[in-house]
Amino acid sequence: MRDTFHDELDQIGVELVEMSQLVASAMSRATTSLLDADISLAEDVISDDSRVDEAYRDLEERALDVLARQQPVATDLRTIITTLRMIADLERMGDLAQHIAKVARMRYPVSAVPPELQATIRDMGRVAGQIIAKAGAVIATQDADTAIELESDDDVMDALHRRLFAALLDDDWSHGIEAAIDITLIGRYYERFADHAVGVARRVVYLVTGEMPEPAGA
Amino acid sequence: MRDTFHDELDQIGVELVEMSQLVASAMSRATTSLLDADISLAEDVISDDSRVDEAYRDLEERALDVLARQQPVATDLRTIITTLRMIADLERMGDLAQHIAKVARMRYPVSAVPPELQATIRDMGRVAGQIIAKAGAVIATQDADTAIELESDDDVMDALHRRLFAALLDDDWSHGIEAAIDITLIGRYYERFADHAVGVARRVVYLVTGEMPEPAGA
Repeated sequence: MRDTFHDELDQIGVELVEMSQLVASAMSRATTSLLDADISLAEDVISDDSRVDEAYRDLEERALDVLARQQPVATDLRTIITTLRMIADLERMGDLAQHIAKVARMRYPVSAVPPELQATIRDMGRVAGQIIAKAGAVIATQDADTAIELESDDDVMDALHRRLFAALLDDDWSHGIEAAIDITLIGRYYERFADHAVGVARRVVYLVTGEMPEPAGA
Repeated sequence: MRDTFHDELDQIGVELVEMSQLVASAMSRATTSLLDADISLAEDVISDDSRVDEAYRDLEERALDVLARQQPVATDLRTIITTLRMIADLERMGDLAQHIAKVARMRYPVSAVPPELQATIRDMGRVAGQIIAKAGAVIATQDADTAIELESDDDVMDALHRRLFAALLDDDWSHGIEAAIDITLIGRYYERFADHAVGVARRVVYLVTGEMPEPAGA
């Protein structure tokens, strides 16, 4: 039997998954805009971040409203608090996609990514896509096994990030300082995006198992 | 008249200020370790981050415990939720200080900061110190005017950040790619540190005025 509180919680869960899809779309388009120097796509990602921010405010308000009206305790209270944190993670992930689109816009009509790094950045975009899709699935299903998969996706992201640095530090690097700054920041944005997705998954594990995760990014 | 709930809230506020002092100390020492290539100071900052994480876990547990036991509503509920977010901001600021100390450690026995950028990084460290001190004061006093001051400190930080980039892109830059990567990341860490401090101050303004701040870093 479901009561009003759990119905409301379920609805918030559904919209949290929708918010994760907005973020996934933003990141996917940001990566394409960066690789292809697609200014109109970059502009779309930048302006669409307001939709992520709106989802953030809307979901936060609803979660706080449920908290105030229903006065949940124990597991239910933990679920609401954890939901508030996941909303904040997703909002930040939207910002990071927007940051990537801003680099694309700044360097237009050239791609900020030199030819020899296009494959690595494409892979980082692909892993970012996987990781946010899995984070959404974890929210929807509360499946702790998928949450563990995210940790290994995050390891792949870290390896790609190291590959970026190796390319920058190679004697053959011929694109100068400005491109190196861009790649350093872009790499950092993808890495942080993955960290936040892992944060979301860890919070779900915490909900399911009751074990407090370590702070993300520690 | 104060009741148990408000006494507990006051105590959490006191410990939140103490946590901000831990973070301020970490950032101040991280900056010194970076400028002076002081490996033992860098190691101290890195290992002391566990104290920030401990304060985070302890304060979070206490806030959740108060929330569960006291079932606050309206302003009191908002205060607890906002407190949870400020704890998370401070934890992240501790991580950023640790990241700076890790760059110092990685480049030891050389400073990661070339001579001509030492003054700018010193200024960024000084502004970071001001901004975390003011964030602590805002938590302690709930003074919205000091919270507004933080926004202009953040503008100073942004200007210093732009100065770093200008130096990297100057034709006279003679320190190569690795140093440019270091400076790019270090600059980002200081900038994010300031952003989180502004986030803390905005949350206090929200508590005092009831106006929802924009998401930090938007």
